[in-house]
Amino acid sequence: MFLTFSCKEQKASLLESTVLESKQTDPLSSWHDTPTKQAIISYVKEVTNTESAKFIPVSNRVATFDNDGNLWSEQPLYFQLFFAIDRIKAMANEHPEWKTKQPYKAVLEDDMKTLMSYGEHGILEIVMATHAGMTVEAFDAIVKNWLKTARHPRFNKPYNELVYQPMLELLDYLRANNFKTYIVSGGGIDFMRPWIEAVYGIPVDQVVGSSVKTEFVIEEDKPLIKRLPKIDFIDDKEGKPVGIQRFIGKKPVFASGNSDGDFAMLRYTDSNTYPSFQLYLHHTDAEREWAYDRDSHIGKLDKGLDYANANGWTVIDMKKDWKVIYPFQKE
Amino acid sequence: MFLTFSCKEQKASLLESTVLESKQTDPLSSWHDTPTKQAIISYVKEVTNTESAKFIPVSNRVATFDNDGNLWSEQPLYFQLFFAIDRIKAMANEHPEWKTKQPYKAVLEDDMKTLMSYGEHGILEIVMATHAGMTVEAFDAIVKNWLKTARHPRFNKPYNELVYQPMLELLDYLRANNFKTYIVSGGGIDFMRPWIEAVYGIPVDQVVGSSVKTEFVIEEDKPLIKRLPKIDFIDDKEGKPVGIQRFIGKKPVFASGNSDGDFAMLRYTDSNTYPSFQLYLHHTDAEREWAYDRDSHIGKLDKGLDYANANGWTVIDMKKDWKVIYPFQKE
Repeated sequence: MFLTFSCKEQKASLLESTVLESKQTDPLSSWHDTPTKQAIISYVKEVTNTESAKFIPVSNRVATFDNDGNLWSEQPLYFQLFFAIDRIKAMANEHPEWKTKQPYKAVLEDDMKTLMSYGEHGILEIVMATHAGMTVEAFDAIVKNWLKTARHPRFNKPYNELVYQPMLELLDYLRANNFKTYIVSGGGIDFMRPWIEAVYGIPVDQVVGSSVKTEFVIEEDKPLIKRLPKIDFIDDKEGKPVGIQRFIGKKPVFASGNSDGDFAMLRYTDSNTYPSFQLYLHHTDAEREWAYDRDSHIGKLDKGLDYANANGWTVIDMKKDWKVIYPFQKE
Repeated sequence: MFLTFSCKEQKASLLESTVLESKQTDPLSSWHDTPTKQAIISYVKEVTNTESAKFIPVSNRVATFDNDGNLWSEQPLYFQLFFAIDRIKAMANEHPEWKTKQPYKAVLEDDMKTLMSYGEHGILEIVMATHAGMTVEAFDAIVKNWLKTARHPRFNKPYNELVYQPMLELLDYLRANNFKTYIVSGGGIDFMRPWIEAVYGIPVDQVVGSSVKTEFVIEEDKPLIKRLPKIDFIDDKEGKPVGIQRFIGKKPVFASGNSDGDFAMLRYTDSNTYPSFQLYLHHTDAEREWAYDRDSHIGKLDKGLDYANANGWTVIDMKKDWKVIYPFQKE
């Protein structure tokens, strides 16, 4: 146990030097010096100040981040859907029937309009066809290989390079102040785990996400965990607080999201007896990223935006608050 | 990120001093110097030695521990069942119908024979009647209060003082060697979380357990998570590897259990490509604790014991390997 404590002490002492440094080096250097950045910094300074009435003990500094449209982009489709589409094409030879069977036919013909006409049910079918039927290790390898080879249609970059530089800095800044950072995403937990530790510095046991059912079997004396084509848990909307309670076991003090799918998580965090911080990312930059909110099919931000404005939550205006969007755009 | 690394480095440097110290102070001082203790120490020394072919990187040092009968006792009934029985009695006034309705009647009359005659179904009914219908915060407070007031019938101690001193030392020893320790128990995750951090030094987000379904609701503008009388997940037998993959996301290298309910977890761990360690606790001490294995209704250890003996897993003989059982028995 004493190791844990000395570790915390050392973090604390390092923190002091970090705070000193930060007078020269800005921990949020990709953020413009706007009220948004100031609100984040003043919250963190206050709740980490042992002299302050708002002080939060380290063990309660839980920070949760949505992923799609919040840590990386989600347009023109959720990146996990691009993955599913690429997998359908890669698997088509083993499934000649897909040439004539919808929604597979639409995917193979790049007919997004027809695919979307099948709605959530159609999406779910191609997700299940591509995310189940293999071991967890095989799926992990498939995701890693896709990230190496696939390119985003607009930016021609690997999908996991389309992460937000200012949010990477925010994650580091919170961790430097002894917040424990978690991802709480509607995306697949096993779709995120293969890459999030390297990209976000978040370990695989600090990810809450949607999942398919799995089963433990022993085949030819080999223990295996197989992915089944059945939904286990949907970590979205009211599912996010449920997932946080199940996986993390503590109410966050800091929550960051970008859509109405994060509204329940932000409301839940706002009910913390410790001073809490709710952060919404508003996509306002059609030139450098995308601009969308109330009417968007993906990442719709409507009632959440009204509630944020009425209740003093912090809303990032991507265009005004961020100097750069992606790491590869840094000078 | 650099904080994480410097933290690890500091752990590592502290580890060296720990190793030096341990030449004077034994990290497993409540263990007799038997082959069991020697097997544990030689495994840890080898997989933490950067010079060794068996070296395991820190991020893969995942150690999972069953709880009931492995970190604390489980006789004459699972302690969580004592909790359910005490709750039925405490709630009886609000439920006059229980006086005549089974299995409640049996509980109120301390008629364990009749209660057991209702089998798993009867147990499930009293568990659901006592573990659901309140918020997660209310349940947390009920568990904490029960641990303050309830006493074990044989030892007349709070239930969470009936933890195994040698296992507490093993948890500390593994953490001192940068293993991340998790509980993976058939017991209720929210029954363990209120007390395990203080007793085992394991944080609430490193517990995998059985759970009831919960729902997020907003009542009178207050966000609440309510516990529902429906099973969500049973973290036992084949459920343990499934729970490990879902919550931890990595295959353990070290797994510790005491019953056939842990067999799948130990088999799963034994399939790790890193050198792994499987530890079974065999209850052989009727005088200081309890002696039971193949024919026990609680904590049955039968096929697991045969497989362990045939496959070179390490089996703790409680009577021969442990100097003391409980912390309050230490000189």
